[in-house]
Amino acid sequence: MTDIPGYALLGHVNTPDDLRKLTPEQLPHLAVEMRRHLIETLGRIGGHFAANLGTVELTLALHYCFSTPHDRLIWDVGHQAYPHKIVTGRRSRLETIRRFGGLAPFPHRAESEYDVFGAGHSSTSLSAAAGIAAAAKMRGEDRRAIAVIGDGGMTAGMAFEALNHIGHLGLDVLVIYNDNDMSISENVGAMRDYTARVAEKLGLNAPHRLRPGRPLPHESGSEGEINDVHLDTPGSMFRSLGFDYHGPVDGHELASLLPTLQRLKCVRGPQLLHVLTVKGKGFDPAEADPIKYHGVTQFDPVTGEFPLKKAGGKPSYTQIFGDWLCEAAERKERLAAITPAMREGSGMVEFAKRYPDRYFDVGIAEQHAVTLAAGMATEGVHPVVAIYSTFLQRAYDQLIHDVAIQNLPVLFALDRGGLVGADGATHHGAYDLSYLRCIPNMVVMAPSDENECRRMLETGLQHDGPSAVRYPRGSGTGVAMDAEPRPLSIGQARILREPIGRRRPRVAILAFGSMLAPALEAAEILDATVVDMRFVKPIDKSVVFQMAQSSDLLVTIEENSVLGGAGSAVNEVLAAQHQSIGVLNLGLPDQFVEHGTREELLAQCALDSAGIQRAIYKRLRSKDMDGASDNRTDTGAREPGLRSL
Amino acid sequence: MTDIPGYALLGHVNTPDDLRKLTPEQLPHLAVEMRRHLIETLGRIGGHFAANLGTVELTLALHYCFSTPHDRLIWDVGHQAYPHKIVTGRRSRLETIRRFGGLAPFPHRAESEYDVFGAGHSSTSLSAAAGIAAAAKMRGEDRRAIAVIGDGGMTAGMAFEALNHIGHLGLDVLVIYNDNDMSISENVGAMRDYTARVAEKLGLNAPHRLRPGRPLPHESGSEGEINDVHLDTPGSMFRSLGFDYHGPVDGHELASLLPTLQRLKCVRGPQLLHVLTVKGKGFDPAEADPIKYHGVTQFDPVTGEFPLKKAGGKPSYTQIFGDWLCEAAERKERLAAITPAMREGSGMVEFAKRYPDRYFDVGIAEQHAVTLAAGMATEGVHPVVAIYSTFLQRAYDQLIHDVAIQNLPVLFALDRGGLVGADGATHHGAYDLSYLRCIPNMVVMAPSDENECRRMLETGLQHDGPSAVRYPRGSGTGVAMDAEPRPLSIGQARILREPIGRRRPRVAILAFGSMLAPALEAAEILDATVVDMRFVKPIDKSVVFQMAQSSDLLVTIEENSVLGGAGSAVNEVLAAQHQSIGVLNLGLPDQFVEHGTREELLAQCALDSAGIQRAIYKRLRSKDMDGASDNRTDTGAREPGLRSL
Repeated sequence: MTDIPGYALLGHVNTPDDLRKLTPEQLPHLAVEMRRHLIETLGRIGGHFAANLGTVELTLALHYCFSTPHDRLIWDVGHQAYPHKIVTGRRSRLETIRRFGGLAPFPHRAESEYDVFGAGHSSTSLSAAAGIAAAAKMRGEDRRAIAVIGDGGMTAGMAFEALNHIGHLGLDVLVIYNDNDMSISENVGAMRDYTARVAEKLGLNAPHRLRPGRPLPHESGSEGEINDVHLDTPGSMFRSLGFDYHGPVDGHELASLLPTLQRLKCVRGPQLLHVLTVKGKGFDPAEADPIKYHGVTQFDPVTGEFPLKKAGGKPSYTQIFGDWLCEAAERKERLAAITPAMREGSGMVEFAKRYPDRYFDVGIAEQHAVTLAAGMATEGVHPVVAIYSTFLQRAYDQLIHDVAIQNLPVLFALDRGGLVGADGATHHGAYDLSYLRCIPNMVVMAPSDENECRRMLETGLQHDGPSAVRYPRGSGTGVAMDAEPRPLSIGQARILREPIGRRRPRVAILAFGSMLAPALEAAEILDATVVDMRFVKPIDKSVVFQMAQSSDLLVTIEENSVLGGAGSAVNEVLAAQHQSIGVLNLGLPDQFVEHGTREELLAQCALDSAGIQRAIYKRLRSKDMDGASDNRTDTGAREPGLRSL
Repeated sequence: MTDIPGYALLGHVNTPDDLRKLTPEQLPHLAVEMRRHLIETLGRIGGHFAANLGTVELTLALHYCFSTPHDRLIWDVGHQAYPHKIVTGRRSRLETIRRFGGLAPFPHRAESEYDVFGAGHSSTSLSAAAGIAAAAKMRGEDRRAIAVIGDGGMTAGMAFEALNHIGHLGLDVLVIYNDNDMSISENVGAMRDYTARVAEKLGLNAPHRLRPGRPLPHESGSEGEINDVHLDTPGSMFRSLGFDYHGPVDGHELASLLPTLQRLKCVRGPQLLHVLTVKGKGFDPAEADPIKYHGVTQFDPVTGEFPLKKAGGKPSYTQIFGDWLCEAAERKERLAAITPAMREGSGMVEFAKRYPDRYFDVGIAEQHAVTLAAGMATEGVHPVVAIYSTFLQRAYDQLIHDVAIQNLPVLFALDRGGLVGADGATHHGAYDLSYLRCIPNMVVMAPSDENECRRMLETGLQHDGPSAVRYPRGSGTGVAMDAEPRPLSIGQARILREPIGRRRPRVAILAFGSMLAPALEAAEILDATVVDMRFVKPIDKSVVFQMAQSSDLLVTIEENSVLGGAGSAVNEVLAAQHQSIGVLNLGLPDQFVEHGTREELLAQCALDSAGIQRAIYKRLRSKDMDGASDNRTDTGAREPGLRSL
């Protein structure tokens, strides 16, 4: 145990066992130190912030009362699990969190025996807890499964599915319903309205709960109806699903939390404890504006002030989308925009303000978001679904079944396509080109710069069928923007660089989206032809034909898994065209990439200019036909790993 | 209007307008005729049956009271929409339903203006209705959106997501909650238990509701809790979500349905009408055993008897799976099996009976099913998730985020991979090889016969990581079964046929799964080499290398989209191995295939022996390199269509 200056208690708490040696009276003091440690550290290094201030007491109480890791503690989403990491042996490494090689951004099974189930995406914890409880029952083991889920996470359908199943089986699951009335933005939905109204009635509103609940439906007493007018506690919904409802309790009062949890430890069957917490608790600026302090880069630990942004930076793709959306909405009345709880992250703050009647935040409900869009599209509205690539995985069936089969005009603005950086493996958009390309009727575009991005969004909006524009996290290239976004001709690539000399072998690089920039750089060295493919689907067959005819080696490059991705589309076209030409498929490897900066990860995957050059030179040098020596296209599950930096 | 003998009323009802000309007193008589027509027709041609008997009065009442198609009537799932098809101009074509070129199995936008939103998968109707209602509001149109959803469909998370959103926005959506206490099997889940208990209490149990509701949680009055003891109507949950709750009403009593719907027509905002119906209503054998009569081939319209099955037929893949599952469970105590409401369809009836403690029917909740499995897998249980290929699309994110990233041992028994036949475009398992292959850590197998299928299931069960065995609908090849299912060596193909003569050019067919049989047939004519690839991932690189070295043309063939599928894996390996050999990728086309028999559809897609031969001969004949002349690998969205039969 190491002591750290100014942290009389925290310096001695390295494990839950250390924690359990403290008296209950010491815990509030520990909470104060923990909160100070979070503010000091995260002010310096950034990370998820406000949610962690909200779970300090809850984390201490849970580890104090339950026998972790024997009892299984499962954190939903996991951006609120920093206090958990701190008390489970990772305090000294907190400052490496989200950094390359550092602590994972979310709970991660490989990192600690206390991280019993990995997270990242929302609303998985209840199902995981159900599985853990069911397995314990099968194996005759006496343990508790405790899932901590927020009111935001509870809006996703899979949480409801899990409640419905746990209640039915009567599994030993304790759900901690961490209700701070917030998702990343304000939480939405009828369930939230209901809880808020109840909280109002009970006088339990947290300081930042400023929005009242929507009035509940009138209790009409018309003939033939049976009415329920007893809506005075938040428990009835959970009770209907077979849970014992407990609470609400103040999640920052250890004096309430501890005895309640001690008692619940002995109760079997589905239990739900409603805990009211304040996002940003204990740091005034974060309490006042929890959205701003959800995730931060750096801030002053006293004033909360953020460092001034450098003016005149390149715009992010997210901004480009947000600006285009407002401008398109002005032109086109029948445009609606839908987000599953990512207003800020998707660049829709301005649109939400200017067009509230055409703005739909559905909560964390990707499935509903997509079929809602399909419904609108049948009625002559062109919906834009703004969604992160990784979250569209949640609505894959809806995209196929409701949008693509019916060939409806829905535009997917797919943000965070490719490597996202610090959020790591759970959040990379590494598969969208593969999983979208195989679906009939889809038009799939990948912009190489922000001007192209805007033109593609416009192309999608003018297309009478489903389309997706998939752009990366971060800034564009700083290219000049056209005055008006002219739509592209669908399926048409553009040749951006022709070789200057007559060097042999002749290399042509077919670049998709974000990979154009490093491809162009590499091409200067290699004197290669470069094509900006623009469309992953329909792919430009004639440019592929032309390049195959005029080159000795085709190189495809994309920020997506090589398996089944855009390069694979090129391979299929070449096969269909009876072209026998050497092809080198570059892209993301067939393994999960962890966290780091985008630049670090791209370099790790050899998707920067240097990596591209190396791969092409290697291929040009190799004379042998032994595929075993080349692991670039790793289609096996037992292949060697990523090149370490 | 044509008269049909014995159908004095039905013969004159070809549109909802005809229906509205009848007096309310005539409707019960029309219902009798409709039911007789359904029994007579479906006894002869088969199709979805019991659910349609349950919606006869409801369908008549809805079209009678609302102004369809101006008011939008959306059927969830759609297997209960035959009465709707009958009264909307399709009565005379009912006997073509589910047949090649005939009426679609479910509502289908291209088929009728009354089919405002296509269906097939469950639980999409509420989101669609929300989109339609939101669009009407945006466009200032006065119309009602009415969604008919069953109690089975209500268990899916996306239904909850939609309710939560509709209630929040206060949209003009009328939900008809068609509660027959059945999914395809018995409905499950805490919500069902709750409703059943309430129905019991109110004396509203339908004749076949034999299972009582699970007791609700005790209402403890311990200190610090606020309790809700008013659980006396089924409405409180819906009310909590912002809906006015109406009912329950008897869904077979037009005298109650008509005035209730007339009244609801004038009420705005989110409304829910709870309708109790009986699956199989009016046909005693179906009422007594609605599971047996859910979908039928043929039956005697008087006795309900099914024609005797021919003895000694080839076993279906589903049976092979079910038998293996029981046998594996006997050997391995820590095996659990999970189904999202498809006990019968997935061949798990026997397992459910023999191992009730290891059998988990989670309801229509694919997302929860997969993460539940992941949770179990973290605790040393090896779960088998039995799921149709098309439904795994609903749990894609959970497969990636909870199973694959954590590299957990979960075996997916993927039934209905490839073309499913009569259920059509919404149900074909046409994309799984593409969407699974790109995910790291997955082992993906496709058996070419039932013995292989069993060996692959065993391989998956013994593998310490995620795996999928993807098998087709229907019967195996009748091959002899090994005494014991020996696991395969992961990633190893087998060469099944070597050429007899020395014919040039030398063709090697790399067949995946179900396509082995027609490939072998075609190979006899072509004297081609045939490889049973067995593994889509990891793919056998050395056999690909060997075939490329010894052949002039490689043909890949699979019952999956050519785009990004198994053939595409072969292309990638060839590129990585610097192999420049002609490849012909055969598989499903880049368009949605409609309904018909499996044989008809396979022929349509040229995936029978004749089609394979034609494609290979065409390729061998063609000298030109003009890819535009070859549409086999259709990667574009604007390509020509399927070859018509």
